[in-house]
Amino acid sequence: MASDFDAPGGDGYFTEANSAEVVTARNRNAADERLHTVIDAAVRHLHAFVKEVEPSNAEWRTAIDFLTATGHITNDWRQEWILLSDILGVSMLVDAIDNRKPRGATPTTVLGPFHVSDAPRYESGADICLDGKGEKLLVTGRVVDTEGRPIAGATLDVWQANDEGFYDVQQQGIQPDMNLRGVFTTDADGRFWFRSVKPRFYPIPADGPVGQLLRALGRHPYRPAHIHFIVAAPGFETVTTHLFAPDCRYLHTDAVFGVKAELIAEIATVDDAPRAAALGFPNPFLALDWTFVLARPGAGAAAAA
Amino acid sequence: MASDFDAPGGDGYFTEANSAEVVTARNRNAADERLHTVIDAAVRHLHAFVKEVEPSNAEWRTAIDFLTATGHITNDWRQEWILLSDILGVSMLVDAIDNRKPRGATPTTVLGPFHVSDAPRYESGADICLDGKGEKLLVTGRVVDTEGRPIAGATLDVWQANDEGFYDVQQQGIQPDMNLRGVFTTDADGRFWFRSVKPRFYPIPADGPVGQLLRALGRHPYRPAHIHFIVAAPGFETVTTHLFAPDCRYLHTDAVFGVKAELIAEIATVDDAPRAAALGFPNPFLALDWTFVLARPGAGAAAAA
Repeated sequence: MASDFDAPGGDGYFTEANSAEVVTARNRNAADERLHTVIDAAVRHLHAFVKEVEPSNAEWRTAIDFLTATGHITNDWRQEWILLSDILGVSMLVDAIDNRKPRGATPTTVLGPFHVSDAPRYESGADICLDGKGEKLLVTGRVVDTEGRPIAGATLDVWQANDEGFYDVQQQGIQPDMNLRGVFTTDADGRFWFRSVKPRFYPIPADGPVGQLLRALGRHPYRPAHIHFIVAAPGFETVTTHLFAPDCRYLHTDAVFGVKAELIAEIATVDDAPRAAALGFPNPFLALDWTFVLARPGAGAAAAA
Repeated sequence: MASDFDAPGGDGYFTEANSAEVVTARNRNAADERLHTVIDAAVRHLHAFVKEVEPSNAEWRTAIDFLTATGHITNDWRQEWILLSDILGVSMLVDAIDNRKPRGATPTTVLGPFHVSDAPRYESGADICLDGKGEKLLVTGRVVDTEGRPIAGATLDVWQANDEGFYDVQQQGIQPDMNLRGVFTTDADGRFWFRSVKPRFYPIPADGPVGQLLRALGRHPYRPAHIHFIVAAPGFETVTTHLFAPDCRYLHTDAVFGVKAELIAEIATVDDAPRAAALGFPNPFLALDWTFVLARPGAGAAAAA
């Protein structure tokens, strides 16, 4: 151990010009090659950033204070670091890199903090809105492969905010448990359907350092209205994604950059009294139809190569 | 306010290819131009880093967990963010950028966490070692301008670790208060001198996430033996710096990259019984002589331009 630490090594002393090279040379004994690669890249990009902006000592101290405040507000249920990653587009970039898909496959977007792992399993047609509040929405669709063939037995794990922009887990005692959540399974033709309500936009937590940063940047904290889906089937890559309402005022300025053009749904107004009556909906009602396209493992990487 | 947020802006939706451009475009309403510049640069470098290393979602989560742990160990007396900045060379890079000096002027290095603002003022010759422990060291020197002219009335705020590698503030009740600290003033010829002991190397706090990272990178946590100085005089740039012992085993591998070649002192062994007796030192004793060279404000920026 001591030999390398003690050696009057050939790295040279730190200067402004050679700063990144001196630091990365010091990391050459890293045990894990991947950690070594990642930290060296972090050092190079971090030093390039500092050399570009040339912070004053006071500005550096402001950055330290921001990190300190972000660390202190983070706890078991408030993850300010993920919010920071989100509003800087890093979460979506990692998601995009990790989930390259072949053309035509449904793209992914971020999971978000409101998924629960034990949502109830329902038969097709179930109404996931347990309190009857909100504007009725019929959701229908299919799950198919990239050749358009139906995938039977695919599961769709669905969750969404209510028409006031809150998830059940944010309003325990106000919304029923498991409100606006459920797991559905496709039939032999790859079809699924369920009843719900139109979701509303909502803010990410904006009362901490990330919210202060958003305000300083002239940005709002809102995510446009959406429904979350995790779509899975044996032999296919699982897709964690959202469908976005097309008419939301925040569709073009999602605070976390989660919107992809391929994930904006149409929401039709259906004027069909007998169908509304069969659904238990008032007439007219809203309807969203969507086809999820699942890729086979590795198909995205192959397409990108 | 609402108009820009609501506008179906021309930024386009986030994709892997345009990620940084979409995020920086979103920040265009930042009120403060400097903040806008810094955050946009941070976003560009951060996205370039992510695109280079292509982290998996699990690796991204590991980074979130590291930030969370670093935030949670930080408190009023433990600043893990500054330690992280230190071991990545960022603190020294900011210091270098902020303190460019003309050729020949004494360079700066990092302040560190152990300075106190109310150290005692001493007459030349005082012994700052209050407990008599350690190997006796005579420190002599001058403060001059970049033309070699003496600067009278310059102050030297001095502090150092003892021969076990601890500062007084780390060992309250063990070391006397204000042990190995003092403020001296140069005479008409720019000279100062004081008595002390040879400092020892010491580790930065290594029991937290930064220590774990150092170990994973095959790095030790030690800072080579040094004496801190803040040298100030009216009409000159204040210099916050260290002098390093030339024979320390960690001289070439300072955990925080604080060593500059121009700051390595010679420590002589002086065999002079009458002088030792006059100093109250055993014979032989150690001696360090140093000339601090102060620059006039703006001279470094002018030299760099």
